[in-house]
Amino acid sequence: MIFSSSLLENAVTEFSKLPGIGKKTALRLILHLLKKDLQQVSNLSESLLKMRRDIKFCKKCHNVADEELCKICTNYSRKKNQICVVENIRDVMAIEATQQFNGTYHVLGGMISPLDGVGPDQLQISSLLSRIETDEVVELIMALSPTIEGDTTTYYIAKKMGTHAVKITTLSRGVAFGGELEYADELTLSRSFTNRLPIETLLNGSSSNE
Amino acid sequence: MIFSSSLLENAVTEFSKLPGIGKKTALRLILHLLKKDLQQVSNLSESLLKMRRDIKFCKKCHNVADEELCKICTNYSRKKNQICVVENIRDVMAIEATQQFNGTYHVLGGMISPLDGVGPDQLQISSLLSRIETDEVVELIMALSPTIEGDTTTYYIAKKMGTHAVKITTLSRGVAFGGELEYADELTLSRSFTNRLPIETLLNGSSSNE
Repeated sequence: MIFSSSLLENAVTEFSKLPGIGKKTALRLILHLLKKDLQQVSNLSESLLKMRRDIKFCKKCHNVADEELCKICTNYSRKKNQICVVENIRDVMAIEATQQFNGTYHVLGGMISPLDGVGPDQLQISSLLSRIETDEVVELIMALSPTIEGDTTTYYIAKKMGTHAVKITTLSRGVAFGGELEYADELTLSRSFTNRLPIETLLNGSSSNE
Repeated sequence: MIFSSSLLENAVTEFSKLPGIGKKTALRLILHLLKKDLQQVSNLSESLLKMRRDIKFCKKCHNVADEELCKICTNYSRKKNQICVVENIRDVMAIEATQQFNGTYHVLGGMISPLDGVGPDQLQISSLLSRIETDEVVELIMALSPTIEGDTTTYYIAKKMGTHAVKITTLSRGVAFGGELEYADELTLSRSFTNRLPIETLLNGSSSNE
């Protein structure tokens, strides 16, 4: 790509460093910004810098926050003794969007993955263990991805709980709502078959053993 | 989408104003930036603002430039008496990428389109007419898109030339290189048939009447 302005070239180069944004897309977006008011471009530019510079991570759950503690941890109506353990911030947002959970979160910042060189020490596991005691936690909901890394992390944390009287649960697994059976993968289908649920769960929306 | 940080929310909102970038994509990109060094984010932020604030448009051809005149207009080795008329900056870049043209450009900034309320006065046509005289132009290459708007603009400019002894040409039209005949649209195919070229053009790479 041949640019007749180095300012344009710089902006395109910086923009195309973002994942999934190639040079052509970057150019299209930059030329769009070129047509906009200076104020609008300055808003975008400032919001990016401010976000990176001033954002904090909650001291308790490690979620993103504007203050020392995040909005969820400081919310008095949320149960402090029920913690949902997730991999990252996006998972918090996904679960919050369901409006089903009224406890607090704990963001691990990753999952145990020896292949990628990620051990338990790189994750926020020790701070989770200390929360178990200080907040008198009664339930730990392990909401990690149903992968080898996720299961390893879940087992590791469960083992670390040791003698604590904490109920540890995981998200239910099975065929997705609205999915077609013939397209479900073999493992999911065979596990859903083995762990079949009483018909009442379909009618009540919750498992009978809860 | 529920955000636990207003800084994050601001950045995502500003980013998702870009065309083709939805909230989910914006979040993915912003969370990517959150993991990067402050320096890298500040480079991006600054390059955007600088680009919008300091970029200039060439006084002669209206292409983007860092100075009063663009790199192409100030290049002594390029023919000033051959002007390629294009719609926008991206067209200049596309033609420059072919490395086939050694003249100068003129960016109209759009095409005549009564439906969109764009008349000749909104385009850089009068400055083109004055260039014809000052630069003693011998050829005007109309490189506009082969659409109704493009053709209208080409005819309008050709008529404006009046008694000037300027050769006016347009890009050749026909089936695209490497394309399959059966997929070419009817109009293109029928025109290519009518305007068929002598076999020499295939061998020499240029039309015999030039």
